[in-house]
Amino acid sequence: MSRTLKLAVIPGDGIGPEVIAEAVKVLDVVAPSADLVIEKTQFSLGADRYLATGDVLSEEDLTAIASHEAILLGAVGGKPGDPRIPAGIIERGLLLKLRFSLDHYVNLRPTTIFPGVVSPLANPGDVDFVVVREGTEGPYVGNGGALRQGTPYEIANELSVNTAHGVERVVRYAFELAAKRDRKKLTLVHKTNVLVNAGSLWSRIVDAVAAEYPQVSVDYLHIDAATIFFVTDPARFDVIVTDNLFGDILTDLAAAISGGIGLAASGNINPTNAFPSMFEPVHGSAPDIAGQQKADPTAAILSVGLLLEHFGYAEAAARINDAVATDLSERGSAPRRTSEIGDAIVARLS
Amino acid sequence: MSRTLKLAVIPGDGIGPEVIAEAVKVLDVVAPSADLVIEKTQFSLGADRYLATGDVLSEEDLTAIASHEAILLGAVGGKPGDPRIPAGIIERGLLLKLRFSLDHYVNLRPTTIFPGVVSPLANPGDVDFVVVREGTEGPYVGNGGALRQGTPYEIANELSVNTAHGVERVVRYAFELAAKRDRKKLTLVHKTNVLVNAGSLWSRIVDAVAAEYPQVSVDYLHIDAATIFFVTDPARFDVIVTDNLFGDILTDLAAAISGGIGLAASGNINPTNAFPSMFEPVHGSAPDIAGQQKADPTAAILSVGLLLEHFGYAEAAARINDAVATDLSERGSAPRRTSEIGDAIVARLS
Ligand SMILES: CC(C)[C@H](C(=O)O)[C@@H](O)C(=O)O
Ligand SMILES: CC(C)[C@H](C(=O)O)[C@@H](O)C(=O)O
Repeated sequence: MSRTLKLAVIPGDGIGPEVIAEAVKVLDVVAPSADLVIEKTQFSLGADRYLATGDVLSEEDLTAIASHEAILLGAVGGKPGDPRIPAGIIERGLLLKLRFSLDHYVNLRPTTIFPGVVSPLANPGDVDFVVVREGTEGPYVGNGGALRQGTPYEIANELSVNTAHGVERVVRYAFELAAKRDRKKLTLVHKTNVLVNAGSLWSRIVDAVAAEYPQVSVDYLHIDAATIFFVTDPARFDVIVTDNLFGDILTDLAAAISGGIGLAASGNINPTNAFPSMFEPVHGSAPDIAGQQKADPTAAILSVGLLLEHFGYAEAAARINDAVATDLSERGSAPRRTSEIGDAIVARLS
Repeated sequence: MSRTLKLAVIPGDGIGPEVIAEAVKVLDVVAPSADLVIEKTQFSLGADRYLATGDVLSEEDLTAIASHEAILLGAVGGKPGDPRIPAGIIERGLLLKLRFSLDHYVNLRPTTIFPGVVSPLANPGDVDFVVVREGTEGPYVGNGGALRQGTPYEIANELSVNTAHGVERVVRYAFELAAKRDRKKLTLVHKTNVLVNAGSLWSRIVDAVAAEYPQVSVDYLHIDAATIFFVTDPARFDVIVTDNLFGDILTDLAAAISGGIGLAASGNINPTNAFPSMFEPVHGSAPDIAGQQKADPTAAILSVGLLLEHFGYAEAAARINDAVATDLSERGSAPRRTSEIGDAIVARLS
């Protein structure tokens, strides 16, 4: 009995379409073996669409996307500094709009160093952790404002909003995840000594939920100290739970130490399945190398793995992971085209 | 003609007194050769004082400290999780209170890898940059609050406040510094695509001031991308200007890649000299190793170098730097006591 999965595909800008083409190839090869039929709808969204029509994501687009069961997204964002595109309009109007509207309160970003991959760290050790980044609150809420803009008296504010509801649900998810893993360790990362209101909320909720998970050991690091351990002893981490902005920063750093942003996959998860979850590489649209088949599609392909895992297809996900691992371990130093990497991984899967 | 400098010394908590003892030794040795008489006043402030008296920094303390020409601070903060000390009360009531009251709008944190020092990076390259961190605004202003605390309906907010006045003065300082350095490069680090109000203010001011410094080349990185370059290519940086929180994060990471927080010095500068500037190691009070002569006093000693440089004693500062460099290059792997490191550096200076 095959199951049909309705997938919204948003290739986006820059290298997005190139890496998504490879991710879709991989999905198409793996799905049948899992008795899965993927019904894809393509959405043309991003900077080009904005430049052509002036809109970023209409209510109709959003409704149409929300009627799918999952989303695969490449990357969005125009050329930095393009005078026709106000700073962040695509990122906020499209990417963050989807995360917020579809209540993606868990932004899941696993980090491991695949065998054969060179870390910039001399001795990274045995790195295998997951950052559970809150996705719908914090300084990302867009509740800032400016007064007297453009004058010497300008005041520009940004508000970080944190709620018990929002923090508790992501903390619970993180504990649940930690309890399932071998080491059962959870680290809260925040800046409780400065951001005392938000920090106190996060700390109290972690303490309260910890009481329900006696098998999980819990510690705490300030965000600044956490970045130190990311380069001196990343192997110490198992599950990290943190706020939206700290999670953004830590996961780029995590990608860097584990072999680069070209390998970092992520899932924007709505654990209740009230809305479709969204899977995307952590990297951006990299307009400087777009259209040249220079981008590494591995992160997009691994994001397909996270998608399959999310729907319970653990075996299919593991096959993708293994194919990627083999490909990585046999990569020479000669650069390959985006499609060559995709083809090589597909070949290992067939 | 000798000059007298009135110095407030705040050893603080944990390892603070131990590292400050060594820093003062070094200052006492170097000052005479610069025809400088240091008139020291000790202030007993920090967690112990708070536990004994219930106050952190009285108005009288502040007035007394402000009547000095400079401050040398060790580290402040009690044992994390000590139930008698509310989270962050010492850090905010003492350290941040000083930075804000004394208008330390430039938090200067130089990073270089001394010869012989082992970086956790396999190939760090030629690292030599300075982070100019804004010190009196951003998410550090303490303008947050909580509603319905302790209930499932709790909302905890943190406000980041940024002003044209506050941003322009630190940006000007950074350009002035970049113009004096060999590479004349300035990188703004922010998150303009998400924190659009603050980000727009920072970007516009950097653009405006850049027009006055055509000899300085300017670029921009999002905070997340900046952390990637800190581990993949830190040698690319020259002067970084950034907000209070991003600067906090980046400078711990900078310390980590350049050999550890035990070597990272900083100056909290009021460039107008309306108030005394304050020099301190970047590290914290490390209560777990306090009183055991295990702490490395190098960061505190280098902070004395920054102090001397601030007052125009470039040669004396360079002597300290050289003595530290020699000591570092000849350090074996055998651990030395805090005072042994101080004595070794003093010996090289005599
Ligand atoms: C593009 C940007 C808005 C986004 C973020 O900050 O969340 C990106 O950096 C990420 O991590 O997915
Ligand atoms: C102790 C803490 C308040 C402080 C900060 O966040 O500024 C410290 O981390 C630093 O970098 O000097």
